[in-house]
Amino acid sequence: MAIQLYDLAGAEDDRRFSPYCWRTKMALAHKGLEYQSVPWRFTEKDVIAFCGSSTVPVIRDGDTVVADSWRIALYLDEAYPQRPALFGSPEAQALSEFFANWAFRAVHPAALKVILPDLFARIHDKDKPYFRESREKRFGATLEAFAAEPKQRLADFRGALEPVRPGLVQNAFVSGKGPGYADYILFGVFQWARAVSPIRLLEPDDPLYAWRERMLDLWGGHARQAKGFPVWA
Amino acid sequence: MAIQLYDLAGAEDDRRFSPYCWRTKMALAHKGLEYQSVPWRFTEKDVIAFCGSSTVPVIRDGDTVVADSWRIALYLDEAYPQRPALFGSPEAQALSEFFANWAFRAVHPAALKVILPDLFARIHDKDKPYFRESREKRFGATLEAFAAEPKQRLADFRGALEPVRPGLVQNAFVSGKGPGYADYILFGVFQWARAVSPIRLLEPDDPLYAWRERMLDLWGGHARQAKGFPVWA
Repeated sequence: MAIQLYDLAGAEDDRRFSPYCWRTKMALAHKGLEYQSVPWRFTEKDVIAFCGSSTVPVIRDGDTVVADSWRIALYLDEAYPQRPALFGSPEAQALSEFFANWAFRAVHPAALKVILPDLFARIHDKDKPYFRESREKRFGATLEAFAAEPKQRLADFRGALEPVRPGLVQNAFVSGKGPGYADYILFGVFQWARAVSPIRLLEPDDPLYAWRERMLDLWGGHARQAKGFPVWA
Repeated sequence: MAIQLYDLAGAEDDRRFSPYCWRTKMALAHKGLEYQSVPWRFTEKDVIAFCGSSTVPVIRDGDTVVADSWRIALYLDEAYPQRPALFGSPEAQALSEFFANWAFRAVHPAALKVILPDLFARIHDKDKPYFRESREKRFGATLEAFAAEPKQRLADFRGALEPVRPGLVQNAFVSGKGPGYADYILFGVFQWARAVSPIRLLEPDDPLYAWRERMLDLWGGHARQAKGFPVWA
């Protein structure tokens, strides 16, 4: 039976924007594992209460339930060692965790400041009060203040990605010659944006632009087929 | 014959502060390779002209000359594959390069702003005009302006290290269970500081503090034996 994935959806069922769920979807595709995704909204806490988590991604693989994108990645490499590895070595796993912590602090907030108005417009109406309240508490600012000065925000976002660029001039992927979990960590940010916002995040001469094209092409265009705005918009 | 290493020195011959040379010294110790270090000053460009580089580290290993700490690390793993690996896998190597690019942008400038007055006081008199001119050009500010507001600079430095901390709560090293090249990249910053400045960079309850202790203890206390200020100052 295919793995079940609880995947964040918005006002439209098929617009899937969670960057963390994208990490898991790319990881499942990397391992060649079939999955069936179940649309889920922020406020449907009771639906996933069985797993002890209040956020997605959550997967159910037979009798096994795993929540949290990082723990899911570790589970997949452990449960399916014969399939392509997400990390490649214990050292690469530790460094991918650093990469996740860097992305969480430097890239996610910078991206959110760019896409927040578009994102808020596309989440489900029933989720809007929860989203506004939880995020305004987290940011210590109103959603509107958090995303003020859009031009500067876009420049800040591009600047935050600076440490990734030299590697992508030399290698096809963040993880080297082939894609690995660090690539999915970063790519989740771009799928998050693409699902909800027509803003042009990258210029075509940016090494990240060609990398994103390669990511969109992976596994038969798995990510490109998902509903979103064209990246060249 | 032992490997020769051209290593940046200051007014005192035995105060070795280059963070990039420290990466190489730790890498050589990691591989169990003997080396003989040659003190070198910023303005002694002619002494290392033979290698086509104007900066250290530079190593001479028999007939082979390699400049640049990153290229030296790659060379050591390639030339001595039977000895402990600095990276562990191609994926870990690519992610270590990202780590180096992150450290270069986020950690090195933040550390330099903290230690610059102490550093400038301890470089060789003959290097001072070169150092001031080249760095003021690079920073677009006088040395004094670059390092103004020391309390804020220390807080900024500690904040810049935030993405490393979660990993060091779980693992002994940045690279996981054992030390790897990413550890040496970051540790170089602390040896740079320790060689020239009594400033207390880390509080004892910081996970980085215990990590630095482990790094100072590695390879028979190789780094701790080098001349510098006590880290508990």
